[in-house]
Amino acid sequence: MSHEKPRVVIVGAGFAGVFAARELAGAECDVLIVDRNNAHAFLPLLYQVATSAVESEHIAAPVRGIIRNMGSKAANLDFCMAEVSGVDFARRVVQAEGQYGAKLELPYDYLLLAPGSVTNTFGTPGVDEHAYSLKNLEEAVRLRNHILRSFEAAAWMKDEDARQRALCFVVVGGGPTGVELAGAMAELMGGALRRDFPRLGLATPCVTLLEAGDGLLPGFPDSLRGYAKRKLEALGVDVRLGAQVAGVTLEGARLKDGGFVQAETVVWTAGVKGEPVAGRLGLAVAPNGQVLARPTLQSQEHPEVFLAGDICRAEHAGRPLPMFAPPAIQEGRHAARGILRLLDGRAPQPFRYVDKGMMATIGKKAAVVRLGGFSFKGLPAWLLWLAVHLAYLIGFRNRLFVLANWAVDYFWSERCVRLISRRNPLA
Amino acid sequence: MSHEKPRVVIVGAGFAGVFAARELAGAECDVLIVDRNNAHAFLPLLYQVATSAVESEHIAAPVRGIIRNMGSKAANLDFCMAEVSGVDFARRVVQAEGQYGAKLELPYDYLLLAPGSVTNTFGTPGVDEHAYSLKNLEEAVRLRNHILRSFEAAAWMKDEDARQRALCFVVVGGGPTGVELAGAMAELMGGALRRDFPRLGLATPCVTLLEAGDGLLPGFPDSLRGYAKRKLEALGVDVRLGAQVAGVTLEGARLKDGGFVQAETVVWTAGVKGEPVAGRLGLAVAPNGQVLARPTLQSQEHPEVFLAGDICRAEHAGRPLPMFAPPAIQEGRHAARGILRLLDGRAPQPFRYVDKGMMATIGKKAAVVRLGGFSFKGLPAWLLWLAVHLAYLIGFRNRLFVLANWAVDYFWSERCVRLISRRNPLA
Repeated sequence: MSHEKPRVVIVGAGFAGVFAARELAGAECDVLIVDRNNAHAFLPLLYQVATSAVESEHIAAPVRGIIRNMGSKAANLDFCMAEVSGVDFARRVVQAEGQYGAKLELPYDYLLLAPGSVTNTFGTPGVDEHAYSLKNLEEAVRLRNHILRSFEAAAWMKDEDARQRALCFVVVGGGPTGVELAGAMAELMGGALRRDFPRLGLATPCVTLLEAGDGLLPGFPDSLRGYAKRKLEALGVDVRLGAQVAGVTLEGARLKDGGFVQAETVVWTAGVKGEPVAGRLGLAVAPNGQVLARPTLQSQEHPEVFLAGDICRAEHAGRPLPMFAPPAIQEGRHAARGILRLLDGRAPQPFRYVDKGMMATIGKKAAVVRLGGFSFKGLPAWLLWLAVHLAYLIGFRNRLFVLANWAVDYFWSERCVRLISRRNPLA
Repeated sequence: MSHEKPRVVIVGAGFAGVFAARELAGAECDVLIVDRNNAHAFLPLLYQVATSAVESEHIAAPVRGIIRNMGSKAANLDFCMAEVSGVDFARRVVQAEGQYGAKLELPYDYLLLAPGSVTNTFGTPGVDEHAYSLKNLEEAVRLRNHILRSFEAAAWMKDEDARQRALCFVVVGGGPTGVELAGAMAELMGGALRRDFPRLGLATPCVTLLEAGDGLLPGFPDSLRGYAKRKLEALGVDVRLGAQVAGVTLEGARLKDGGFVQAETVVWTAGVKGEPVAGRLGLAVAPNGQVLARPTLQSQEHPEVFLAGDICRAEHAGRPLPMFAPPAIQEGRHAARGILRLLDGRAPQPFRYVDKGMMATIGKKAAVVRLGGFSFKGLPAWLLWLAVHLAYLIGFRNRLFVLANWAVDYFWSERCVRLISRRNPLA
């Protein structure tokens, strides 16, 4: 490659990075996407991987395949599988570790930082050591393995109390991830696993959802929040509001009010924070690790650097935007357009979030949707949830296979991916 | 469970174990299948997992699902996910380690040992340390990850020689596994990966197949063996006969004649041997680790113990049967029938292998089949290969998904599962 054209480096192949790359395909610049994984992962369906509903491969799309599928206009896009370790803003170089320890220096004229977010434990003791989380494909497969293994273990326990403990699961956090996971776990355990383990008998599995606030799904209209709680309870989930977790041990979750919820499995979905790499770059960050951006999504310190996705502190109606997919997609597109404007000698425009709404699913035929000013729930909301998630899932084959899995789940209440995978080192 | 009924324990949920269990479903005995994995894996398609063609989940069928799908007559079957550590033949108890270190004792009246086989390196130096193998799902995913990662690494190497080395792959062993893997690797690299890495340019990937004997596919008719070699060469595979490997290093494979084949990736498919657990039980074993069986497949030492599958030294036409799926299936069924005869107070009958033939695929529309006394190759052989493999793959959904993947591969020469999965611990 000759480098007469300006070089754009995009760090992160999540929603923000991929939608920015699509915007830049065919433009008068060379674009390099850098990610530690070789595939874009559709994180809104991680909870389905964790509950044996879909294969991890089906919610992942190789970045090189995404580029190829854009056709010949994407000839200016390339990919580098590497872990970004730093940015030399003075020399305009991204420093990264490629495969097998290769040190790479990736020069840029414009940089889009979209490395995403990680779990935020808020320093709660024991979460790092004993709790499961759900922020990437590996964590989802790890949780799937653990749930299935807990049942295999319980089936051969002679002590009734120990068996009951092994079949108790706690989900911490009543946001969309926690609600969707708790509902899917209850359906998995009441359906496929109940049939898999007919002899477990009286020791029924229990799922408890702990939310520190006074209701599930903060940010949703009140009627939907109440519906979500009732639907979860109908599935057998023990929903506890005002339950602040003070610590996690091997035996369960300790609450701030002195209570204790016994469970050998605790899943922490109660918080996210910006990828720590951003903090190490010397950029001004908010307490939650997000990087403070100008209204144009340019970095405050370096106008040739843009921010998008969970790492970017952008505001809407005077409040920070949540770390969800829709803001990431819109920010990614907007940042790319800002780069195109700079290439064109024009000033980037301020970002305005178009709030199309939010949605969460609780179980079969049960979901909640806020669409503009409208709220709806139940079957129509569930169908819309399915349609939107299929539409944003990348790859025709992935859509086909996920749809097939959903159909099996819908008609036979079957969860097909009940495989406990073993140690699988990267190297 | 009351235990008035005789207890049968089956060690291993491979072909032999699963087909034996099907034979015993509904009989007047309680049957317990024990396996370290919770799923039966369809090992003949491992090479397709390693070459990004199918998902590992799609060639795995959870044992509890297999039992459920047999319907109500399988109410006498149960499953235990545990690693067998020993057998107390005097007390008739299988000792095993269950989940999270649980020590289990599983009593039996009749025992079927079908733990399968492992890679045999014949003590060749460096194979354990540096070579990849292909005997289970994890090894297949590990090889897939490594192939894809080699390309990601090569794409960012500045040194032309280093890049060429990273893109050289050696397969050791010209049996069905080696032939099928080498062909599938050549197709993956000449198809999907060539399109994924348009800028790799001149550094073409190379696949070398090393076979110690004077031809590929020993046991097949000569005309098919020659055809397989020509077809592999047409795919770009460098087939070397009479190439005995003396050792494997980080740089490649050293040959007994003093030659050296440079390659950063060496896959060892040159040998199998009986699961080492058999040797630790104090049973008489052959040099290749197989347990010597009576003609009825009963153990020589313990008539209530049967052997089936790769662990069982059975003979056909005066020669040991190869460690393939068809003998395992027939032995599993026969051993189960032997147990049923003993339950019925009758003597087990000697095992007679019905040789239906053998088959191997080389690439798209290219396979070899010996069916009874007939040999054929090319498209008809390939279609038969597809049909037989789909038929023996367990689970409607798995068949559907594998067929869909094959269709994508056939029509678009696309390999969809190009995901590099990261560290994925069991616990």
